[in-house]
Amino acid sequence: MTTIPRDQWYVAAYGREIGHDLFSRTICGESILFWRTEAGQLTAMSDRCVHRRFPLSQAPSRLVGDSVVCGYHGFTYGADGACVAVPGQTRVPRTARLRSYPVVEQDSFVWVWIGDPARADATRIPRAPWLVSPDYTTVSGMEPLAARFGLLVDNLLDLSHETYLHGGYIGTPEVASTPITTEVDEAAGIVYVSRHMDDAECPPFYATSTGLTGRIARWQDIEYTPPCLYKLHSRIAPVGSLPNPDGTDPDAFHVEVVYAITPETEHSTHDFWAVARDFALDDTSVSDFIAEQNRTVVLQDVAALDVLEQVIATEPAGYQELSINIDTGGLAARRMLAAMLRQEPATAAAR
Amino acid sequence: MTTIPRDQWYVAAYGREIGHDLFSRTICGESILFWRTEAGQLTAMSDRCVHRRFPLSQAPSRLVGDSVVCGYHGFTYGADGACVAVPGQTRVPRTARLRSYPVVEQDSFVWVWIGDPARADATRIPRAPWLVSPDYTTVSGMEPLAARFGLLVDNLLDLSHETYLHGGYIGTPEVASTPITTEVDEAAGIVYVSRHMDDAECPPFYATSTGLTGRIARWQDIEYTPPCLYKLHSRIAPVGSLPNPDGTDPDAFHVEVVYAITPETEHSTHDFWAVARDFALDDTSVSDFIAEQNRTVVLQDVAALDVLEQVIATEPAGYQELSINIDTGGLAARRMLAAMLRQEPATAAAR
Amino acid sequence: MTTIPRDQWYVAAYGREIGHDLFSRTICGESILFWRTEAGQLTAMSDRCVHRRFPLSQAPSRLVGDSVVCGYHGFTYGADGACVAVPGQTRVPRTARLRSYPVVEQDSFVWVWIGDPARADATRIPRAPWLVSPDYTTVSGMEPLAARFGLLVDNLLDLSHETYLHGGYIGTPEVASTPITTEVDEAAGIVYVSRHMDDAECPPFYATSTGLTGRIARWQDIEYTPPCLYKLHSRIAPVGSLPNPDGTDPDAFHVEVVYAITPETEHSTHDFWAVARDFALDDTSVSDFIAEQNRTVVLQDVAALDVLEQVIATEPAGYQELSINIDTGGLAARRMLAAMLRQEPATAAAR
Repeated sequence: MTTIPRDQWYVAAYGREIGHDLFSRTICGESILFWRTEAGQLTAMSDRCVHRRFPLSQAPSRLVGDSVVCGYHGFTYGADGACVAVPGQTRVPRTARLRSYPVVEQDSFVWVWIGDPARADATRIPRAPWLVSPDYTTVSGMEPLAARFGLLVDNLLDLSHETYLHGGYIGTPEVASTPITTEVDEAAGIVYVSRHMDDAECPPFYATSTGLTGRIARWQDIEYTPPCLYKLHSRIAPVGSLPNPDGTDPDAFHVEVVYAITPETEHSTHDFWAVARDFALDDTSVSDFIAEQNRTVVLQDVAALDVLEQVIATEPAGYQELSINIDTGGLAARRMLAAMLRQEPATAAAR
Repeated sequence: MTTIPRDQWYVAAYGREIGHDLFSRTICGESILFWRTEAGQLTAMSDRCVHRRFPLSQAPSRLVGDSVVCGYHGFTYGADGACVAVPGQTRVPRTARLRSYPVVEQDSFVWVWIGDPARADATRIPRAPWLVSPDYTTVSGMEPLAARFGLLVDNLLDLSHETYLHGGYIGTPEVASTPITTEVDEAAGIVYVSRHMDDAECPPFYATSTGLTGRIARWQDIEYTPPCLYKLHSRIAPVGSLPNPDGTDPDAFHVEVVYAITPETEHSTHDFWAVARDFALDDTSVSDFIAEQNRTVVLQDVAALDVLEQVIATEPAGYQELSINIDTGGLAARRMLAAMLRQEPATAAAR
Repeated sequence: MTTIPRDQWYVAAYGREIGHDLFSRTICGESILFWRTEAGQLTAMSDRCVHRRFPLSQAPSRLVGDSVVCGYHGFTYGADGACVAVPGQTRVPRTARLRSYPVVEQDSFVWVWIGDPARADATRIPRAPWLVSPDYTTVSGMEPLAARFGLLVDNLLDLSHETYLHGGYIGTPEVASTPITTEVDEAAGIVYVSRHMDDAECPPFYATSTGLTGRIARWQDIEYTPPCLYKLHSRIAPVGSLPNPDGTDPDAFHVEVVYAITPETEHSTHDFWAVARDFALDDTSVSDFIAEQNRTVVLQDVAALDVLEQVIATEPAGYQELSINIDTGGLAARRMLAAMLRQEPATAAAR
């Protein structure tokens, strides 16, 4: 039984990953071929030939101009997925067409719609404008996770784990000890989790990147739009400093941490991460430091969640977790994901 | 549900692979032990001891004279599979007997019958006489394939893939562009697929081995006897040259390409290949060239089919291929294989 | 369907393996955390946090004094498995408690009870007193086996395999050729298998360790208490030498070979082995020789049984073995194990 909502937009790649070359990535169990035409148009289609299912991303398959030529028997497809040539005959069967997927490039991400294309509404794609804003500098990456996407949702919705799993990087005692507040906006489909630490130790991640010394005010405001986009609005400031009534906040450092959580299969996930900051915009040493630190933190999560996936694989049916206050956001996210699954037409859920 | 007809002869090995030594190979999911007696008689029997199923091909099991001694508890078997000694008692149970398999050595191959021995009719084994004819020189080998045997049948019945998968070796544009003719002899159980190219580019495989320059007439006449034996009668000649009315064909070069397609398991296959030629019989450089080229071509197929097996493993139930004219031979072969399965007694199909 | 009796004591480790450190081992499919308090008390509890199932043996989980701190979110547990601290709140849920397991340290082993703790009766743990007796010198180890525990039970109950699998170490022709006697004490739950060889070749294992030259009397008296503890009382003496009527046996060398057969999962086993001798007590060269030889012998068994597990994985349902006189002890052991499974309450067998 699947746990993956399919009638949804997912981040498939960074726009920079896809050029005039064949690029394949599995999203929600479907192997999808991405490429750009010579004019730069982004395309997404099934990565298996309609004839004998050879992957079109697999050599000797190749891109010739704006056509994809299958490396097994030469079936040839245009940018819309329609077959334009087959071997041994001039007539091309009308049904010879690759499934094509709606794609949208936005906020540095390539979003793809996996369900029924008729229901693909690009206006519903959540935004992460900092990633392409000139007022921010962003570092980003993607790590493969050998665990179901729900484990990463759990992980990111409950940051108390920073204290234990990421001590020495982004965790300090105050993260685990400070209670959270959780809100769910059912209409907008967003879970909010906030933790405001008024007087906290400054972890190395922020001390080195901001240059702040001494204790800090540290705010963590999470905004998760299931299933894919997670945003952590992180505010770091000297103790006692507050934003101005007009919203300006000159003494604070703002970091927007964005995750895109994309199921690869039922048991593996693409873990996209990006960190945008509004300070030291041109300082490449700060960029390098944040990139290296955040990747290390992501890999600590990956190692832990890969272990959890293995634990689940061997546990008895009906195993029960115990949840406490810190899990309120994660449990709300689970409920929203379960509701998405229930509301899907059977054709979207069926494979 | 199996896709492997069992009441059939399959090539298990080349005769040269089996001597007065224990040799094991899995055929249709059954682990079979082959060896020759001191007098040279070929034998085939189950490769697991009747007592506690230890493999008789596994050290410290060993051949002592014409007896096989199990390396676990010393159960000892003669060339007919009958047990002749057990530990701790002098009486040997009458039922202590390894299953033995009918075997026939013919045309350089060792053929084994997997189904009910009562139905093993050696006269039904298809022939490939060139492989042992003094008028031909043969090179041969076997490559393991991590894919179901049906994928190799598909591959070999549709040679249009030479143009794409084997370009630069045996493929030229004319193979994919020239239509085929297909005939099925239901009584004899043979599928014929022919492609006659009257004016074609000469691929490196033939240019180098024959010394022909310029364009050629190239005939491909396939003769497949399901499930195991595939023969490609390949005729290469200067453009315009035809065989004489009496069948002689002095201006042409003839190559008999033989494949034996033997299921190892439901998802893996022994891919035996042999190339016999009627020219340059004593030229070892030609033999070496053809052997190296053909092995390369086989490994290109292996790489592609191994990928297809993985694709099938992850695809949804009910996935539909699209077939066109070039697939006529392959589809006929599938129908004959399906009919073989339907006609098998339940005892042959059951495992 | 499980083959593992759960309402039983199993050897989990040697006492020496467990200190004031987190030590994890999977027993009967359950991942169990073992450690000693600062006062030396042995504890055993479930190796997964009640919150989000993170393994407590996995870094950055750690032992702090006599508390285990989970490396994911900091749930903290005492030596009795009760949770004493959770993140983000001061109240600890009353149900936050790790399952704890009865443990007993005896005869150098750590025994653990897997089933319902209410039925754990430490007086039923079988004894192997030589392993801690000052009158004996013991070498011991553990080898992981990628095979179901029943295959090791079969192996150890039928020592005729020594002749074939362990020739050159402990096997000689007489082991396989000498008949056995078997007795079953249903009340005590013990299988006895005896083989007394009055005039046998002395294998290298005993020739080198005892210094005996020439032929020997060799007695093998097996005492197996299913499911876990196997003892082989081995007596080596000059031919014709018998124990005195009062039980003293000054001319003989006595070796107590002890195995603890502990299922790790349905298809893997912890193969604990120990060899205690009543001679050359202080001769470390004898200890080193016996340890190296016995480990080699165990690894020969491991290699053979790992192969058998693979053979079973591919064999058809309903495959039938053939058993003879030498298997009487093994078959009796199987019957006792099957009876244990039948007598278990459903709650013990269910997982």
